[in-house]
Amino acid sequence: MTEMPDVILNECFARDGLQHEPTVLPAADKAAMLERIADCGFRRIEITSFSHPKYVPQFADAVELLDAVPPRPGVLFKATCPNPAAVQRALATRNARPPEEISFLVSASEGHTQRNLRRSRAEQWRNVEEMAALAGNAFTTVGTISVAFDCPFDGPTPPARVVEDAQRYLALGVKRIAVGDTIGSATPPRVRELMRLLQAELPPDVVVIAHFHDSRGTGLANCVAALEAGITYFDTALGGTGGHPAEIAYGEGFTGNVCTEDLATLFEAMGLRTGLDITRLRDAGRAAETLLGRRLHARTTRLGEHA
Amino acid sequence: MTEMPDVILNECFARDGLQHEPTVLPAADKAAMLERIADCGFRRIEITSFSHPKYVPQFADAVELLDAVPPRPGVLFKATCPNPAAVQRALATRNARPPEEISFLVSASEGHTQRNLRRSRAEQWRNVEEMAALAGNAFTTVGTISVAFDCPFDGPTPPARVVEDAQRYLALGVKRIAVGDTIGSATPPRVRELMRLLQAELPPDVVVIAHFHDSRGTGLANCVAALEAGITYFDTALGGTGGHPAEIAYGEGFTGNVCTEDLATLFEAMGLRTGLDITRLRDAGRAAETLLGRRLHARTTRLGEHA
Repeated sequence: MTEMPDVILNECFARDGLQHEPTVLPAADKAAMLERIADCGFRRIEITSFSHPKYVPQFADAVELLDAVPPRPGVLFKATCPNPAAVQRALATRNARPPEEISFLVSASEGHTQRNLRRSRAEQWRNVEEMAALAGNAFTTVGTISVAFDCPFDGPTPPARVVEDAQRYLALGVKRIAVGDTIGSATPPRVRELMRLLQAELPPDVVVIAHFHDSRGTGLANCVAALEAGITYFDTALGGTGGHPAEIAYGEGFTGNVCTEDLATLFEAMGLRTGLDITRLRDAGRAAETLLGRRLHARTTRLGEHA
Repeated sequence: MTEMPDVILNECFARDGLQHEPTVLPAADKAAMLERIADCGFRRIEITSFSHPKYVPQFADAVELLDAVPPRPGVLFKATCPNPAAVQRALATRNARPPEEISFLVSASEGHTQRNLRRSRAEQWRNVEEMAALAGNAFTTVGTISVAFDCPFDGPTPPARVVEDAQRYLALGVKRIAVGDTIGSATPPRVRELMRLLQAELPPDVVVIAHFHDSRGTGLANCVAALEAGITYFDTALGGTGGHPAEIAYGEGFTGNVCTEDLATLFEAMGLRTGLDITRLRDAGRAAETLLGRRLHARTTRLGEHA
């Protein structure tokens, strides 16, 4: 924890990884997994979501989980907040154990906003304004922009729209922007183009985060492209968990987030410091497989096996 | 088949994909699979190896298979030749059904040559000289250079050694050089560096082929890097099949070749013409899964599934 890593991977297993997992894991198992994740050296860790338990039963234990995982110096535990009520729940935990970071969400397209959030973009932006006002300076805040490359309903997203959404977040005091390749359709040239554009248009103190999905196997290639465009923050999940099933209307559906173990291994091989203990990380990946009862997507944990 | 594709993928399922597969597939199943592969639009297809059946029982049916798969205009079916006896077998099939392309192999390191081929590099080069002399102009020939990035025994391979090996092949009349990332340890910056160096040092009519393995999940990222360095020939395998089990002393062992379906999908998304029918290709990938009785590595054939 002493020296600053060259790249910051945010481990998303406990939130984006589990969000659509059909089996609800016991809070104690999640807490043990989160401790194991923190022991790998992550500085950003998704811990839970304050989604309504009726819609996402996996996160009904949000407050319990925050209580079960003690804060760590230098580590931001992040909770997703889909609406103002969620921010209020995050604020209500403050005396016990607040998340250090919370995230808001907009979709860059009207079609995806309607299908995923069941409202218009204008309505969602009013929601986000309310959330940002409620949050004040209580947390580090992240503004996520979904379907930043392509929308399964509206087609390609104009890069200017992503810049515009990022600027709207900045106007609300949000300084971290997560760029979502929600359906995993981006390509390295498009990633470089959008990431360069964002950095050219936004103030230098804004942190741009690559939140890519590996639906088509392009996750590592797109992260390398983002890195080449100057990005140093990446959202990844152990074993490449996560992804949205097709039945919730995300187009073709997909296979998950970028795999943490594989991206960390690649970055280290490129001479970049991830600040992560790769051996512990692979052990954590295997623990995630045990927890979910199936083989996950990491290649590097399969080295030596005939798969 | 009328217009020249921008990138040429060589489908390696039937050779590199099956080489270490424990189950020996019936020749009829392989032939049907090869016809299916050819129907996708490939211009280069690995068909078999003339390895000694005692060492690689999977390819005991080499001649039978060549007879069962008719030649196609514009398509090179490639057979691997590990030694002079193999070239003689390839020549002996000429009146019936020759392979259009054969490949030779050297390892860029002494340690890997000793462990994989049980002889010295000097001895293997004498072998290759003999093979090239036997082959004459009867085939298109490919010179493969294994462990072109790292050797599990001798460590990193100096790029100058790869250039030297390529030049030795050229001196023998071999005009196609396959650069093997045998243990899947290359990174995009190293790929770009080596591929640029090779193209700078070799005559412009030499075809440099990226033969990468996806052991660590970096296959697509490394292929994109090779493309950016000017490479247009890629060796890939349906479902990411292939790879060498750890017990045959290839270091950590690995998970297979670069996945054809995923690389073709990415290249098409980048606006490059692969000349392949992507729907047929995904069907072929699913047929390969049926043939091997297990789920393979392609992400794009999993779109819509919660894996």
